[in-house]
Amino acid sequence: MFEQISSKDNRQIKRYVKLCTSKSARTDAGEFAIEGTKLVYEAVRSGILLDTLFITAPCLERLAYREEIIGASAQVFLIEGSLESKLSQVQTPQGVYAIAKKLDNDSSCATIEHKGKSILLVDLQDAGNVGTIIRTAEAVGIDRVLVTSRTCDVYNPKVIRSTMGSLFRMMVQTVPDAMTAIEAFQSNGAAVYASVVDADAQKIGTFSFAQDSLLLIGNEGNGLPQSISQAADHRITIPMKGNTESLNASMAACILMWEMNR
Amino acid sequence: MFEQISSKDNRQIKRYVKLCTSKSARTDAGEFAIEGTKLVYEAVRSGILLDTLFITAPCLERLAYREEIIGASAQVFLIEGSLESKLSQVQTPQGVYAIAKKLDNDSSCATIEHKGKSILLVDLQDAGNVGTIIRTAEAVGIDRVLVTSRTCDVYNPKVIRSTMGSLFRMMVQTVPDAMTAIEAFQSNGAAVYASVVDADAQKIGTFSFAQDSLLLIGNEGNGLPQSISQAADHRITIPMKGNTESLNASMAACILMWEMNR
Repeated sequence: MFEQISSKDNRQIKRYVKLCTSKSARTDAGEFAIEGTKLVYEAVRSGILLDTLFITAPCLERLAYREEIIGASAQVFLIEGSLESKLSQVQTPQGVYAIAKKLDNDSSCATIEHKGKSILLVDLQDAGNVGTIIRTAEAVGIDRVLVTSRTCDVYNPKVIRSTMGSLFRMMVQTVPDAMTAIEAFQSNGAAVYASVVDADAQKIGTFSFAQDSLLLIGNEGNGLPQSISQAADHRITIPMKGNTESLNASMAACILMWEMNR
Repeated sequence: MFEQISSKDNRQIKRYVKLCTSKSARTDAGEFAIEGTKLVYEAVRSGILLDTLFITAPCLERLAYREEIIGASAQVFLIEGSLESKLSQVQTPQGVYAIAKKLDNDSSCATIEHKGKSILLVDLQDAGNVGTIIRTAEAVGIDRVLVTSRTCDVYNPKVIRSTMGSLFRMMVQTVPDAMTAIEAFQSNGAAVYASVVDADAQKIGTFSFAQDSLLLIGNEGNGLPQSISQAADHRITIPMKGNTESLNASMAACILMWEMNR
């Protein structure tokens, strides 16, 4: 019924692997890879059309929502189980892999909506952090997540896994750089908040965020560059107790987003 | 000056590795392993005496706080760099490893202080989650973290790494089981809060936690057992937006602890 693939040198297999491992391959092709039953289903349920679906025979047999997933796939390949060691990025492969067109989320700042609550990840490097922040943003009701072009690629397989499907539902947009985004939000009347580790900054919990606001979250190691935090309207901080130097980036972002939309 | 070790079959090397990989070895010896310059220093700075220190010559040469660390070590071994592949649990070994006595934190519930804000991790399995929660608890000013005996061992090397040293400073105690802890807190007048995923539970942000309170956090996959959440005085939840089924365990704990001590 479906074309079979048994060789790991098959062109389609190589294409999938390249999309997992290379950001430039994803950019050039405008495509990305999705692995696992839950994520593939979440993508389909979010209205994403799959260009290519790879599936093992045992997985096809017991696949939940088979009709919807097959129906959303332009082409389907039945793959040998032995190929999973090449395709899978996780320890326990589930037998299903897809290629989809990237969402339309590379934006000039002019086309970004400024209403409501937005966060901007400024040059974050850790894929797990970026994914977890996107997932948490959806849970607490943040309206959109912006990432600078130097932030870890949101189509990195580890980011996608960490979002648990939120990437397919959240508004996630890439902006060229932080300063351009700050200026665009300010010129549209939004208030910009820079999160910093500084006891003299405004403590969250002591003020309310503006109706339209943009929260800047800095890189794991270095925080926000000074030029960026100075360009913001407010410098804010999480009041810290204990001896701990700081929360990790995704925990800090979690508390900040929660307070932003409290 | 220090005794040298060059063989990976050395008894001390085997002892260290066993403490990394086996919970029962840690329990039997009453010891645990600490890796890396920052963690070893944080341990010493927190007043922990090191039974054994392993260090490579290059690391010894450039070690910050060398006097304090050597001074806190009962015995020091100079190790060959080639042994690091056996000792290290991380991708970029730093040349320093220690064995310390476990802290005195196996407690019967009768000896646990009930004042202030406490959290109880009920059978959490993921070492990264447990470590991150302990770190976040210190940062937001939670007074003590209790873990059930079926929660991932807090002396697991990944937990220790994720705490970034908070384990050495926070009050972390193991209790036999959740029900015993709940009863002990309630009989001392503390209010017990069970965090659940249930739209009908009390929404955090709409009430204040009692002065003395115990927050129960459930296992990643299953949440709290019903018998446990029913034994609590309050069933509470994080109001969720979006389609996301739930936050991950450490993000949920982060928001709950922040609200608890807000």
